Formats: sequence, structure tokens, C-alpha cells
Amino acid sequence: MDNKKEALAKHYEWNGKIEVMSRVPLNSREDLALAYTPGVAEACLAIEKKPDEAYKLTRKNNLVAVITNGTAVLGLGAIGPAASMPVMEGKCVLFKAFADVDAFPISIQSRDVAVIVQTIEQISGSFGGINLEDIAAPECFEVERRLKASLDIPVFHDDQHGTAVVVAAGLINALKLVDKSFASIKVVVNGAGSAGIAVAKHLLNFGVRNLILTDKSGILASDTPDLNSEQQHMMTVTNLTKQHGDLTLALKDADVFIGVSSGNILKPSMIQNMKSDPIVFAMANPVPEIMPELAATAGVAVIGTGRSDYPNQVNNVLAFPGIFKGALSVRASDINEAMKVAASHAIASLITSDELRADYVIPDALDPRVCPAVAKAVKEAAIETQINRI
Amino acid sequence: MDNKKEALAKHYEWNGKIEVMSRVPLNSREDLALAYTPGVAEACLAIEKKPDEAYKLTRKNNLVAVITNGTAVLGLGAIGPAASMPVMEGKCVLFKAFADVDAFPISIQSRDVAVIVQTIEQISGSFGGINLEDIAAPECFEVERRLKASLDIPVFHDDQHGTAVVVAAGLINALKLVDKSFASIKVVVNGAGSAGIAVAKHLLNFGVRNLILTDKSGILASDTPDLNSEQQHMMTVTNLTKQHGDLTLALKDADVFIGVSSGNILKPSMIQNMKSDPIVFAMANPVPEIMPELAATAGVAVIGTGRSDYPNQVNNVLAFPGIFKGALSVRASDINEAMKVAASHAIASLITSDELRADYVIPDALDPRVCPAVAKAVKEAAIETQINRI
Repeated sequence: MDNKKEALAKHYEWNGKIEVMSRVPLNSREDLALAYTPGVAEACLAIEKKPDEAYKLTRKNNLVAVITNGTAVLGLGAIGPAASMPVMEGKCVLFKAFADVDAFPISIQSRDVAVIVQTIEQISGSFGGINLEDIAAPECFEVERRLKASLDIPVFHDDQHGTAVVVAAGLINALKLVDKSFASIKVVVNGAGSAGIAVAKHLLNFGVRNLILTDKSGILASDTPDLNSEQQHMMTVTNLTKQHGDLTLALKDADVFIGVSSGNILKPSMIQNMKSDPIVFAMANPVPEIMPELAATAGVAVIGTGRSDYPNQVNNVLAFPGIFKGALSVRASDINEAMKVAASHAIASLITSDELRADYVIPDALDPRVCPAVAKAVKEAAIETQINRI
Repeated sequence: MDNKKEALAKHYEWNGKIEVMSRVPLNSREDLALAYTPGVAEACLAIEKKPDEAYKLTRKNNLVAVITNGTAVLGLGAIGPAASMPVMEGKCVLFKAFADVDAFPISIQSRDVAVIVQTIEQISGSFGGINLEDIAAPECFEVERRLKASLDIPVFHDDQHGTAVVVAAGLINALKLVDKSFASIKVVVNGAGSAGIAVAKHLLNFGVRNLILTDKSGILASDTPDLNSEQQHMMTVTNLTKQHGDLTLALKDADVFIGVSSGNILKPSMIQNMKSDPIVFAMANPVPEIMPELAATAGVAVIGTGRSDYPNQVNNVLAFPGIFKGALSVRASDINEAMKVAASHAIASLITSDELRADYVIPDALDPRVCPAVAKAVKEAAIETQINRI
């Protein structure tokens, strides 16, 4: 409770967590004449002649927009654009602190996909990338898909892909510990919103073949009522044996449980029904699907959560700063699957086989090696897939 | 030519003139827990409960969006949104340097009024004010009018009102020197675009009764063909004697010439046809309507230009930083006529009657007293007209 009070008091003290600074001196008429009129005209004309010069002559080279409409704010839900701004400013602070990437928070009033997309298209020109944040499913899928198609800069919905990249990193290392392969495991992902679907899709990139999505109503199958279009699409690549039933049934003989939905839903008896050496990522916040202590007594081999007070924290800050840093460094036009896969491997590889333990499959969120390693891997993947522009 | 090369080289060196910084420490898990999750939730909930807390808990209290679509960039014309960004970044640098106001540059792709307005409405929530910049007439008028109606934060098209505020300040002092009053003078404004119309409107606020707008085709009258709606509106409050003719005719017996259009159009013979002690603000850039040396030989009492290498520079930087600073300081919902009039008086009053001379009717652009004086006057006017919210 004290922490809550302190956090609020600090926010009042800070008066905003970001600030726009000048990078140029402005002490004399000469300074003015260089940075503003008449000198600035030369920079304008250079961009008019060759648009890519904007990457050199303006902040586009290092600038990401963090954009929300406040419809799915972490742990708080649809609190709206104004109330979501402290989170967006916080995200921008993380971008700066971890990657020295300039990020600017923007809230959008509408919940309408067409309006959101048009607004972002209209203002996207001066940014080097777009980080979508805390936009509710299923709208988030279409917003991202349309923007990726229309814009020539990276568009990345962090709630989806940031989580997916870190979960996969943890799973790479956890599978080494239990000596299993992506191709052989059965994975259950509980939560079929933005994070759950993105985790599932990303794991397919790693060769997972047997994957089941579950939500409150149990296993998602192609005949489950009220599936949104993204969930319908997932039914063509998951649950291929067309299982029906509850979470307990889904977890029978599963190797991996990944939870991104509700706390306290994973029972020890379910874990005991999983295959040997079960792996659990219980990321519901603040209360995980199962508490690590209880999971241990039920025999899990590896457990990760979303919490900083337990080992193996799945924290998006391991992914998004380095991913954008790497993409910006080569003016990538997109953040594609290869770049996300590379980011997962880069995070995982920071833990050597000597260091690897059940309580250390994911690097610490504050590990300073992470962002540079991710940025390098993402940059190289962008170049390999030829979406770099320098 | 060297200056141009140096300005371009500096822009390449700067790699963008603005930077988004963090105002909070982020060195430990505890810092993360205060500025981001879970602590940030308290700030979000406080805003959700009471929306005005956004002014305390986010940067809204000190944040202005500098927005253009690149259709009328100073001296360059319609160079487009990307090429206009060096100017917008420069403007943001001026906001920070002169007023410690955070300003962030945003370019919009469209030239369509409805799209521009909707885009700005959508993203306006987290800003304390909107500075419209370098949007072509007549679209700029409607964009500003619609946004002023729909938004509850100040919307200010600087190309219009910044220029008008500074011209009026200079004219207040120039009229003292020649011992004339606003009510008695005949004013000719050459240029009927955004700046010219705004100057004319603003001077009406000071009691000017006899005002004529001219452009390339001569005096604007209600039967002039192809007037846009803003120009048509101006015909109900200017040229009340319904004169027709060229600039020479317009200037006969005029007291004041204000030029915001084309260079070299004001001839000594025209000045000699003006009343005694003529006042000239020749602000075409880089070549004024008449060069100050030539104007002196023709007998002007006071001349101002847009150039920094001559006395009495009409520079918007005297106005907009203090105007927004003052408006933000009381969370004003608008920048109204009273606030702009107050800004003009504040700028003029910095030159005492002892100091007042023909070559010093406008303070120096770098005079550090200007912004605080303007901010104070604007703040007081906002309170007097009851559009303040603290």
C-alpha cells in the first residue's frame, strides 16, 4: 500500500515523466540563423530533393511513437486515452533508459479501427517507428495489419510481440534444461487475446507443431462460438487434432503451459497430469496462474512469471528497446518474423550453458547486455531479410 | 552561401534538433516499480477518476504540439510534410530555449481540412496546446476555427497571430513616436493570406477603423473576384469606403504600410504620397518590400522588417513562447483576442518612453525580458476573461 502511495506522490512530483529537449545551442543570432531561419531552409530543401535525408537531418533516425487508445491498459483495462498516458510516458522512459531511443507518447481518442489507422498514417511521417501499446483485441490485430501494409516504417504492437519474444527466449533455455525440442513438445497457451495469440504464432516460428489455445471457456476449436477473425485464423494452425474440453483436458500430456490471462487457474493436479519436467510461464499480473512455490511442490521443472520478485521474469523491456534500436539502426521498413526470432535467440543466448539453471532461463530485466545484444541480432536479421535501407 | 553550407552541415551533425528525455531515475527495480508497473497504475487511476489530474501527473502541463502539413513553409512554399520537419524541430527548439515549454513536432500528410482537423482532434488529448504552423491559406483558417471550437486546449496558428501580435507591438510604440492614435490612422496591409488577414484583424482589436487590404491585384473590395471566405469576411470590416485601385492609390494619405507578401513592391514615390511621418513594416523575406536605406531617403518615420540585420525586427519568437507559457500556466482553454492584445502591449511596454527611438520600437528577439513579460500579461488576460482553469 505504501508503494502505491509513493508511486502516486512521485508522479505528482515529476509533473510528467518525459521532456522534449533541444540538441542545439541557441545563445546568439548566429545560432538562431543556423537552427532556424534562414539556415534551416537548406535542410528542408535537401529533404525535399531526397526524402531519405530526413533520417539524417531530423530526429526520424531515432524516434518512435508510442501510441495507444487506452482500451487495454496493463491490469487496468479500458481506462481511456487520458488515463493511459502515465503508462505511455513510462514506456517512453524505458525506451530512453534502455536503448537511448527517443520515444514520444501519443493517445488517440477513437476505438474505431479506421480512425485509428488513418490518424497514425497521417502523423507517421516524422517517426522512424510506431510502437502500438495497450490497444484491445481484436481491434489491435487489424490496426497493426493495416499499418504494416501501408507504412514504410516498423509497426510493432508490443503487447503482442514483446511478450512473445521474451516467452520464446525463456522457452529456448528451458527446453535445453529438460532436453526437449520445439518440434516435439505440446504447448498450451491460456489466454486468446493479443498476447496469447502472438505467443502462439511466435512459437510456431520456432517449429512448435502441437499447440492448443484455451480461454475461460476451455479449448478453442474451429467450432467454438464467437471466435474473432484472428482466433478463427489461429484454428487453422493450432489444435490440429480438434480437441474439445477444459484446461485440465488441454494440459494432459502437455510439456509447456503459458498463461497470459487470469490468476490462480492452474492447479497442482493439472501440472501432475502434464508430461515429465513440465515448464510453466504463469504471467498473469499481479497474481500468476499459479504461485511459484505451489508450482514447485507440484513438480514443475522451470517456472517463469511476470513478477520482478520471482526468478525468470518475462518482462517486455528485455525485447522492445533492442528490437527498435536494431530496426532503426538500419532504417528497417518493418519488424518481421525473422527479426523477432533473432531477438528471442539473442536474449536466450546471454545465459551460457554453464549458467543455465531452472531459476535462470531468462536474463534479468536490468541486465545491460540485453539491449545491445538484441539490437545487433535484429539488425543482422533485417539485413539478411533485406528490409534494411542502409 | 557559406552560411547556407554551414547550416546544412550543422543539421547533418545534429542528427535532429530535438530529443525526448526522461525526467525520472531508472537505475533499479524500485525505480522501475515507481515509474512503470505496478506503481504507474495509481497515476492512471487518479486521472481516470479526475481527468484534470492529467495536468499534474503527465507532461500535459507543459507540452505543445507543433503541427504542420508543409503547405506553406517560410519562404519555401508547399514543400510537403517531410521536408518541413527541420523548421518544425527548429520551432520546438525555440519553444524550449525561450520559454522552457516542451514542444513536439508533428507532420500531417493531408491537405484536406477534414482530415487535418480529425487527426489533430484524435491526438490532442495529451497536449496542453496546439501550435499550427506553415499551413497554407485559406485552409489554415478553417482548420484553426474548427479546432478552436472542438478542443478545450489553446489552438494557435502562429503564422497568423504571432506575426500580428508583434506587428501591433511595434505599431503601439511607433504611433507614440509620431503622436498618432490607432483610431485616427489609415493602414494598408499588403498581402491577404494568413499573416495579412491576421494582422488586419488584430489591428481592428486596437481600434483601427480605416484599413485596406491589398494584394497583387490591388485593393481588395467586396466585388473583387475569387475572394476566399476569409477574405470575403474581411470585406465587411475593412475598406469601408469601398475603394478600388492599385497599391499606389491605396497608400495615398495612409499613415501605415504593413507588408507581408512580396519584396521590392514599395516605391519611394508611394511613401511620399503617404501622410506625414509614415510608418512602414516591410516584412517580406528575405527581400523586404523596400530596403530600409531607401525607405529612409523617402522620408519614413519608422521602419521595421523581418530581418535580423536591421533594427525593429518583427520576429514571432517575441510572441509565441510567452503566449503559450502564459496560457499553459493557468491551463487556459483557448488563446483569445484579449490574450493576444495583452501580448502586444507587454512586448511594446518593454521599451520605455526614454528608450523609444525610430530604430527601437520593437525589443530585440533575444531580449530575455520578453517571454516572462508576455507570459505574465497573457496569464492575467486569461484570468480576466475567465478562460483559465486554475
